[in-house]
Amino acid sequence: MRFTSEQRLDDGVLEREFTLGEIPGLLWTSGSAPAPLILIGHPGSLHKRLPRLVARARYYAAEHGFAVAAIDAPGHGDRPRSAEDEQTRSDLRRALQAGEPVDEIVDRLLLPLVEGAVPEWRTTLDALLALPEIGGPVGYEGLTAIGIRLALVEPRIAAAVFFGMGFVPGIVREEARQLTLPLQFLLQWDDAGMERQPVLDLFDAFGSQQKTLHANMGGHTGTPWFETEDAARFFGRHLK
Amino acid sequence: MRFTSEQRLDDGVLEREFTLGEIPGLLWTSGSAPAPLILIGHPGSLHKRLPRLVARARYYAAEHGFAVAAIDAPGHGDRPRSAEDEQTRSDLRRALQAGEPVDEIVDRLLLPLVEGAVPEWRTTLDALLALPEIGGPVGYEGLTAIGIRLALVEPRIAAAVFFGMGFVPGIVREEARQLTLPLQFLLQWDDAGMERQPVLDLFDAFGSQQKTLHANMGGHTGTPWFETEDAARFFGRHLK
Repeated sequence: MRFTSEQRLDDGVLEREFTLGEIPGLLWTSGSAPAPLILIGHPGSLHKRLPRLVARARYYAAEHGFAVAAIDAPGHGDRPRSAEDEQTRSDLRRALQAGEPVDEIVDRLLLPLVEGAVPEWRTTLDALLALPEIGGPVGYEGLTAIGIRLALVEPRIAAAVFFGMGFVPGIVREEARQLTLPLQFLLQWDDAGMERQPVLDLFDAFGSQQKTLHANMGGHTGTPWFETEDAARFFGRHLK
Repeated sequence: MRFTSEQRLDDGVLEREFTLGEIPGLLWTSGSAPAPLILIGHPGSLHKRLPRLVARARYYAAEHGFAVAAIDAPGHGDRPRSAEDEQTRSDLRRALQAGEPVDEIVDRLLLPLVEGAVPEWRTTLDALLALPEIGGPVGYEGLTAIGIRLALVEPRIAAAVFFGMGFVPGIVREEARQLTLPLQFLLQWDDAGMERQPVLDLFDAFGSQQKTLHANMGGHTGTPWFETEDAARFFGRHLK
């Protein structure tokens, strides 16, 4: 893990860019004592510098003392995009507009993403936990498809906040049944681009005894800020 | 309004019993400055001394400075029960056990309750707001059926937390569409005694732009304590 830049932000948080092999990442910390860690995954097709992601990360670090890390998934952000992904994304948009079934396209787009991103998160986790200012335990928040697989194979993930308004490949939906970690599941009730019932079915499928669904108004990207505060309390209950 | 007893509890909260005509009630306050008010309704067939209700009320008063009031609805708690209600309740239990439709029985049981309880809450509200230690604005939490009608006819109700796992008469379900106040709606996801879909449909029906659904595990009465803390923050955002 190589730090390539660092700056002290006006909220006192230290923001560092790093690379780990091909993986570009960001780390936010607010102190030097070993802190519990939150991994934040960006939404599909976007990147680790997304303003609403950075705002949550800085809040977790500044107000709650968490260490927070984000990386660009394969084909996202600072990393080369593949023509095949672009084509699949365009197929997905066209199918959604036409009201056609999208399961096969979602599998084709997101299964490789899950299979690429999860080992990278684990490698990143190894490197982060070797830093003296990061102590664990570890929480994940972000894209549900990646988060389910990561929580399934990575026992160091102790709690998760899933943004439930994303597509999830069929095989990963099935894996949700095997999860037992505490989780908070966010749904935007009036998201015009997503059917609601599959998201509710996914929440139902999780094997976790401690699972909470939070549904809000405001469209796909309109999750209210109070959910960030509540996610911090959720992570506080399970990681501190 | 006549206070019939008062005691200072170990959390510093002043608990007073009162009567207002035929209505018996409880009031919890933690100071003398005019405080925003939360009205707490008890679940159907139960009463204002329900331990989980009292725990929430004392928490709101002790930790967040709210004034909190609970009353026994007609036919509940310290008030005479009617043989007709008992019969209807027994009809409901039998129909639920037999898996028969219950809509007609729910209307027969709960519509008179709503029509009796709502004017009593309004009378109680008049009396409470005349006390120097209560300043408003006013929130309601409790039985959804009573809460919907109360919020519809009483403009002084500024925010509501509904326990969504109760029966709601058909006419009151329709009234939900007219509500515009901010609300938080609690659902127990694995409540064996309630169908989930009508509860989700009811959440969907509310006209409010600011509405949040919280679903948790733990059965009908197992709402986690962190939902009490979150309800206090919700009321804090809208009443303070």
